[in-house]
Amino acid sequence: MTATIGYLGPKGTFTKLAVDKTFNGEAKHSFSTIPACIDAVNKDEIDIGVVPLENAIEGTVQLTVDYLVHQVRLPIVAEIVVPIQQHLLVHPNFKGELSDIKEIHSHSHAIAQCHQYIHQYLPNATIHFTSSTGKAAELISKRDEPVAVIGNQLAANIYHLNTLQNNIHDFPNNHTRFIVLSKQKEMVKIKHPIQSEKTTLLITLPSDFAGALHQVLSAFAWRKMNLSKIESRPMKTGLGNYFFIIDVNQPYDDVLFPGVKGELEALGCQVTVLGTYPVYQLDKL
Amino acid sequence: MTATIGYLGPKGTFTKLAVDKTFNGEAKHSFSTIPACIDAVNKDEIDIGVVPLENAIEGTVQLTVDYLVHQVRLPIVAEIVVPIQQHLLVHPNFKGELSDIKEIHSHSHAIAQCHQYIHQYLPNATIHFTSSTGKAAELISKRDEPVAVIGNQLAANIYHLNTLQNNIHDFPNNHTRFIVLSKQKEMVKIKHPIQSEKTTLLITLPSDFAGALHQVLSAFAWRKMNLSKIESRPMKTGLGNYFFIIDVNQPYDDVLFPGVKGELEALGCQVTVLGTYPVYQLDKL
Repeated sequence: MTATIGYLGPKGTFTKLAVDKTFNGEAKHSFSTIPACIDAVNKDEIDIGVVPLENAIEGTVQLTVDYLVHQVRLPIVAEIVVPIQQHLLVHPNFKGELSDIKEIHSHSHAIAQCHQYIHQYLPNATIHFTSSTGKAAELISKRDEPVAVIGNQLAANIYHLNTLQNNIHDFPNNHTRFIVLSKQKEMVKIKHPIQSEKTTLLITLPSDFAGALHQVLSAFAWRKMNLSKIESRPMKTGLGNYFFIIDVNQPYDDVLFPGVKGELEALGCQVTVLGTYPVYQLDKL
Repeated sequence: MTATIGYLGPKGTFTKLAVDKTFNGEAKHSFSTIPACIDAVNKDEIDIGVVPLENAIEGTVQLTVDYLVHQVRLPIVAEIVVPIQQHLLVHPNFKGELSDIKEIHSHSHAIAQCHQYIHQYLPNATIHFTSSTGKAAELISKRDEPVAVIGNQLAANIYHLNTLQNNIHDFPNNHTRFIVLSKQKEMVKIKHPIQSEKTTLLITLPSDFAGALHQVLSAFAWRKMNLSKIESRPMKTGLGNYFFIIDVNQPYDDVLFPGVKGELEALGCQVTVLGTYPVYQLDKL
């Protein structure tokens, strides 16, 4: 049976790029929002969902975490890390110079990621915002004029645009993280080598008292369990309550993790395993 | 002298709403991206900048933190907390029912924040994405048809739209946090009562070893200094290095904070005070 994969679209986005690079042969469906994609997995309309978790162009990251925590609990079965690479794309008939460009079209986040570049090389171009980088590419593909779009390689391929300048993003080591959600782990077949394994925990504190987080971290520290991410988020039930998302740099096991869980629950915390999963790092797109 | 305030625009956004509710009499300038607004403060083109820090509709949150940490160090002089309230707005001539609505227009994040509502009450309306909620409101104001926009009260006021349904956002206790940046603290005059005082620290670890963060938190815990937020972010210099943004629930002082700083620096950390500032909570917009 062919697995069906849902992703945050439209086509030409970084999420689609990540999905195309990691999955082959599956049926792919575009969703217009993160909750819609997560819901579809939850209702078994699709087998696998891919949504941005960190540093995304399209989609708010907090929304993914909040929706997974408050609305729908689905296991994270993989993580895909993709370098952010933005290019300056133009209509194939454009033969001019950089200084001829009169307009730049893109999603506001992509424009912001290339802020220094635009300031230095295209200070006189007017900026036009679109609802996605893919939309901007589609627009430019129909305009044989000295206008440019900021987008990725996939957008260039889909809309047959030429690359006037490669890698115009300001930060060279910027990545977007995507998570793969599925009830059926065995359906997720990614052929890339596994870079590392991680476990993501959701921990809620009984109250926000001084040292609570310190106590929580003690349980990991004395076991020499390394953390690669910690983030506090307010509970939606009101101000003053927090939950923490913690990434531990090792797969779930039957000794250390149950030990941590037991100690934290004795302190009044709630501990939920959101997933233990492989990480795939895509070096180049 | 009248202070000049820059904010992430366009008009009709939550940032503009927050600025209008907290500042009076200052000259206000809209910026199209977060880095452009921060740069303008840094170059003294404006006195005060207001940008989203958490859970924003427009603007990526990580970008604000990364830009402040890596590009431009400006003091945070205030925080503004605004409840997220999304309304279903229609053309003033619309006299129909909810079920008559054929199209919904808004920014993708606003659509996502009202996902459950749309699913339940407007399942057959087609969704159209715009680059901002303000843009969507402008669009609908020119169309005397059964179409709706998801936006805030300011967008309704600016574009003379009627509110078909109030507060259609899925999470009742959702807030956006904005930070106020300025080199001249005395120019920032907010007339609302101060809700609390906070200090935000940037801490970089010498390496990501097990227990490093635990050691860092020890310095706060034994002094009973309460933290309201902690977030780790990868350094842009490469994978495997981290910095932490920590919010401490008290103003900077001459005893406790220098003590923390000294201890952490002895452990090889770098500690930077990003700001010590009042928090203003706007209850209703």
